[in-house]
Amino acid sequence: MLKKNSGSFTLPGEAGYENLTLELAKKWGADVIRDSDGTQLSDEIINAGYGIYSTICIIRNHNAWAKKNLDKLQQCFLITDPILATENHIQIRLMDTFFEEQFKVNDTPEALNYWQVYDRTTNEEVDRLQWTYDSKKGEVTIENAIPWHRYTVSFMAYRVWEEISMYNHTTNNWDQEHLMQIDPMYPETQAYLLDWMERWCKEHPETTVVRFTSMFYNFVWIWGNDLKNRHRFTDWGSYDFTVSVRALELFEKKYGYTMCAEDFVNGGKFHVSHMPSTKRKSDWIEFINDFVIDFGKKLIDMVHDYDKAAYMFYDDSWVGTEPYNDRFKEFGFDGMIKCVFSGFESRLCAGVDVQTHEIRLHPYLFPVGLGGKPTFMEGGNPTLDAKNYWINIRRALLREKIDRIGLGGYLHLVESYPDFCDYIEKISDEFRSIKDLHQAGKPYTIKAKVAVLHSWGKERSWTLSGHFHETDIHDLIHINEALSGLPVDVRFIDFNDIKKGMIHDVDVIINAGYAGSAWSGGEHWRDDALVETLTEWTYNGGVFIGVNEPSALSGYDNYFRMGHVLGVYPDLGDYVSHGKWQFEEESIEGLIPTGASIKTKDNIYLTDGQAQVVKSEEDQLQYTINKFGQGKGIYMPSFRHTLENTRMLLNSIRLASGEWDEDAYLTDNLYTECAYYPESQILVTINNSDKPQKTRVKTSQGLEVFELEPFDTIIRKLNS
Amino acid sequence: MLKKNSGSFTLPGEAGYENLTLELAKKWGADVIRDSDGTQLSDEIINAGYGIYSTICIIRNHNAWAKKNLDKLQQCFLITDPILATENHIQIRLMDTFFEEQFKVNDTPEALNYWQVYDRTTNEEVDRLQWTYDSKKGEVTIENAIPWHRYTVSFMAYRVWEEISMYNHTTNNWDQEHLMQIDPMYPETQAYLLDWMERWCKEHPETTVVRFTSMFYNFVWIWGNDLKNRHRFTDWGSYDFTVSVRALELFEKKYGYTMCAEDFVNGGKFHVSHMPSTKRKSDWIEFINDFVIDFGKKLIDMVHDYDKAAYMFYDDSWVGTEPYNDRFKEFGFDGMIKCVFSGFESRLCAGVDVQTHEIRLHPYLFPVGLGGKPTFMEGGNPTLDAKNYWINIRRALLREKIDRIGLGGYLHLVESYPDFCDYIEKISDEFRSIKDLHQAGKPYTIKAKVAVLHSWGKERSWTLSGHFHETDIHDLIHINEALSGLPVDVRFIDFNDIKKGMIHDVDVIINAGYAGSAWSGGEHWRDDALVETLTEWTYNGGVFIGVNEPSALSGYDNYFRMGHVLGVYPDLGDYVSHGKWQFEEESIEGLIPTGASIKTKDNIYLTDGQAQVVKSEEDQLQYTINKFGQGKGIYMPSFRHTLENTRMLLNSIRLASGEWDEDAYLTDNLYTECAYYPESQILVTINNSDKPQKTRVKTSQGLEVFELEPFDTIIRKLNS
Repeated sequence: MLKKNSGSFTLPGEAGYENLTLELAKKWGADVIRDSDGTQLSDEIINAGYGIYSTICIIRNHNAWAKKNLDKLQQCFLITDPILATENHIQIRLMDTFFEEQFKVNDTPEALNYWQVYDRTTNEEVDRLQWTYDSKKGEVTIENAIPWHRYTVSFMAYRVWEEISMYNHTTNNWDQEHLMQIDPMYPETQAYLLDWMERWCKEHPETTVVRFTSMFYNFVWIWGNDLKNRHRFTDWGSYDFTVSVRALELFEKKYGYTMCAEDFVNGGKFHVSHMPSTKRKSDWIEFINDFVIDFGKKLIDMVHDYDKAAYMFYDDSWVGTEPYNDRFKEFGFDGMIKCVFSGFESRLCAGVDVQTHEIRLHPYLFPVGLGGKPTFMEGGNPTLDAKNYWINIRRALLREKIDRIGLGGYLHLVESYPDFCDYIEKISDEFRSIKDLHQAGKPYTIKAKVAVLHSWGKERSWTLSGHFHETDIHDLIHINEALSGLPVDVRFIDFNDIKKGMIHDVDVIINAGYAGSAWSGGEHWRDDALVETLTEWTYNGGVFIGVNEPSALSGYDNYFRMGHVLGVYPDLGDYVSHGKWQFEEESIEGLIPTGASIKTKDNIYLTDGQAQVVKSEEDQLQYTINKFGQGKGIYMPSFRHTLENTRMLLNSIRLASGEWDEDAYLTDNLYTECAYYPESQILVTINNSDKPQKTRVKTSQGLEVFELEPFDTIIRKLNS
Repeated sequence: MLKKNSGSFTLPGEAGYENLTLELAKKWGADVIRDSDGTQLSDEIINAGYGIYSTICIIRNHNAWAKKNLDKLQQCFLITDPILATENHIQIRLMDTFFEEQFKVNDTPEALNYWQVYDRTTNEEVDRLQWTYDSKKGEVTIENAIPWHRYTVSFMAYRVWEEISMYNHTTNNWDQEHLMQIDPMYPETQAYLLDWMERWCKEHPETTVVRFTSMFYNFVWIWGNDLKNRHRFTDWGSYDFTVSVRALELFEKKYGYTMCAEDFVNGGKFHVSHMPSTKRKSDWIEFINDFVIDFGKKLIDMVHDYDKAAYMFYDDSWVGTEPYNDRFKEFGFDGMIKCVFSGFESRLCAGVDVQTHEIRLHPYLFPVGLGGKPTFMEGGNPTLDAKNYWINIRRALLREKIDRIGLGGYLHLVESYPDFCDYIEKISDEFRSIKDLHQAGKPYTIKAKVAVLHSWGKERSWTLSGHFHETDIHDLIHINEALSGLPVDVRFIDFNDIKKGMIHDVDVIINAGYAGSAWSGGEHWRDDALVETLTEWTYNGGVFIGVNEPSALSGYDNYFRMGHVLGVYPDLGDYVSHGKWQFEEESIEGLIPTGASIKTKDNIYLTDGQAQVVKSEEDQLQYTINKFGQGKGIYMPSFRHTLENTRMLLNSIRLASGEWDEDAYLTDNLYTECAYYPESQILVTINNSDKPQKTRVKTSQGLEVFELEPFDTIIRKLNS
């Protein structure tokens, strides 16, 4: 173990626990102390010589102003459930299914202009002259309805309870005033907020870092009034909570066309992040992003004027900030903080173009964790939790530098958990050592450069939409998590990037998702030139890895447009009377580790019988390799993140790209991984399991052998 | 048991076994003796006073003529696998993947006119000036190909080996001359066949019934040259083997447009029976049907002229006869013979508008059965086989009259199986008793009239395409099999029938299949008026039962166009971020029998939480009932034919249509069924299991109790 160092650690302080705060600040090597939601810092802590983080959620906690400006609360479009007409006229009550504490109908004349009534049987809009709204009854009446058709009303609604406040209230039975969220889209709100920000800066001279949570617009979270379906729509990546009459009008001026309710509600489907964007949605994202940068920058400039740094917390209300957009640096943020459960989130944070990258470790210092399980209370084991999160994150930390770590919550809760305090001390030291290694230079990677190809490309690097446990039905989050700690150069590209030639910078392309999804690509695959380019690229030596329904699109002989490269096709019924190629499994020594698991998928078959079936189960394909010219297509019907599958992915990349025999700086035990830093000649080996592991690593200086305790890290300088 | 009678039985006679033939003819009550493929009848048999069936396959066994008329062999379009262009020009060898003993390229100038080269990357035809054919090499060369696109050639080919002959040769290692099939589309062939038929009639004065096998065109069976994928395409319901230059030209004259290769090969998919037809395909079917009737009638008339009856064997070469088309009676057939494994096949035969319906029972008198398992040889148990087939068929026989039964094969094989001979005697007597009951009047059915709705409607009543074991991945064949023996009035309707008002004659509609299939309906569901009509009908009391992906079609808020009636929707990814309705299972006493099983399907959810979840497994829906106005929607993600599920289907129909409390003439033990014939006041109760069963049946005369031996039948006259 290298010499212990300190710094790069943000500690949640707590008034009333000054000794504990300062003692742990020393033990953990903290250089910054923060407040948390529900805690305050005392003067003793503030004056102890540490940097001070203060958290502010800029659009919340302004209820006095909000009550006087109810027309400047944030809004959204809502759509009723489709209602069946059994006669020529029909009444539809707007708020029947929505949580009335969250929403209030906006029926101002300007808002009404944007309302829409649709016949959902024909999917055509009903003429405005055919319907009227009765504001007392909260009801739309449609005249001349077609019996047995179903109708929806899309309307504007104010959001009268800020969603995070609402969640905490209802989950933890809080009994405080409902906080509202004000919309900076209005000049009056902007004036108020700039004034408020200035006052706040003046009143908080001790604060060195203002941590914005995050900017203005929350992810979409539409609640229903029925507890059997409370969370009617939740999307961490969608922009539906950015709507207002003013925004719609400004958009029209700028883009030359009018967005209507249907552009958002999309027949009730909305536009989920997991499906490809539309031109209109992309325009709207650009429009909101432009606004959030424009006004956000004014707040950040002000923070800078008071000699404070401005960090962004990359979570709930990140919408509109787009940290992977090239414009993000225009905000002028000094740092990015991300709360992390998983390796991909560490990479997500590390990849943002900002000076300081900080991750907030789990578990938070709360009695219970996110899933409601005990943490710092009876039945909890926060040290084991910390270890399990750490093995997810550590491997990502080894690949890409993070500058700071930290905790959040109520510090006093750790008092009864001395082993937790020791473990945090240990990993803080580990973290700082790893950070130092990065400062000397990048870790060794295998030669193959990997691109994950999907419709969002760089803008949704690493993440799909939300945390791992929220998106774990998607193969790609499992792949991203596996990749986050592999010794591989990874980038995220979209379909335009292929056409722009970026394909020539990469050796392996991964396309993973179900048909029609943003991750598979949907209509993007209609582009013949794209298929041409990828075909040529693979034929000339590229590796195309397809998972689940890669490149899927109707209208061609193979529903996988890259099926000729993969050597497989799915039968959607057109081929049900066709013969299927029999095959014999032909395994490849060492490629698929014992314990690897791939869930099969019905009706996937070989195109011409040429692909090698490396693994199958009951005549269903699990892993195929198809030689295609100088290149290869690899198909797997699914991918789930496990240690064994992670190694299988690395093996696949190495084998297919021709690096199978180059096995230096790789552990020979899949429950362990390593990272080698050539500049410092330091080899870090980690045990990702809860059992002792022994592993060997080939290096230019010979074979290194490691015996690792459960969860442990060994940092070793090679003899030169 | 009623008094034994005789007749209505066709026995396969065998020369050399005259005593056995005549003895069994008596034992089984035969009135007709037939020859079989591979057996002959001796004079002793012929002159024994029985009717004589002779089997002829009219287009086969004319090799001498065929060799002189190779241009009048039957043909088809074939399509090569797509071949990747890596340069500007590309050669494609036509016969690379096809079985060269089956096909021979037809490159006559007239045939070449119909060949097509396609760019499968763009799915556009390549201009004829861009490609040439080298007949020596059997190769098409495409100039100015676009590199990295894939190309196919569709060409005409003679079929030089009749498929059934080919199958028997290759399966049983026959070593006779390959039989060819001649195409009656040509006038010369017609002249030859009429002459041949006349001669045949003259030479067979003893024959009372000519059994045609079947008419002219075989189901599609394209063989490949690789044993790992021998049967490249097999479809019992497709018309691809009816193609010839002359047919294409006659079609063009009649329909005013030209059919091209692509209309048949459809990018390699062909048009499988399990997908909805196209206008062009339907026109072609009509055209061929018209021809087969036209020329077929001439042959049948000739048979009649010689005072013989003409029966059709509804199997291999049935294509073009369309027994469920209203024109079928124009043939003038006197009888229809169907070989049956299953109940639905008995109904399929019984439902044809012809005087005599005969079924050929299994097992055939062959050493091995269809699946290659032993029958009349060591390891076989033909009596048990017969019992198992009989319980499938008997329940269908009870519902709809069949006029005759019979066997096929080598009679001498039964000599060592006296218990088989006894069992056939027993069921022959049973069969005759059942037939007599039908002659008195129709059996009792419940009130609800059921329609199975799919894109073929009446034309594919009961069958999908082929035998049960060939189509058993489709839910509908399981439903048809279940329905075939239920006391329910069943009809098969298409989407036009709904619009024509046929819906008002039925109480229950079943729509069952995967998305896009002929059985679900695919694009037919684009019709808003259809959805309107079905919605109104259900609202006013109809019952819509949907299985798997009923009414599925993209482009609407619910991928099931009848989803509002069913109360469920499938999420294809658009709704992945939406809340899902929680539910509590709420069973209905007696509806779903113990032992019933329904395979769940991913991503099916409740629309508005209102549907009653009668059965679920691990939060996945298995059986839901949605009240919809006065009617109901019932959804099941799958249906498989078992005794328990059959009863579940009957219960569903009774419950949903309001007949739950009317339980007369139904057994209370699902392993048994019964049929009541009001005219004769006879109640037939059957045991469908291999165990003794006790059951009770409510009748107008009180409760009847039955104790049934395994597989047994009890025919009881109620006291009046």
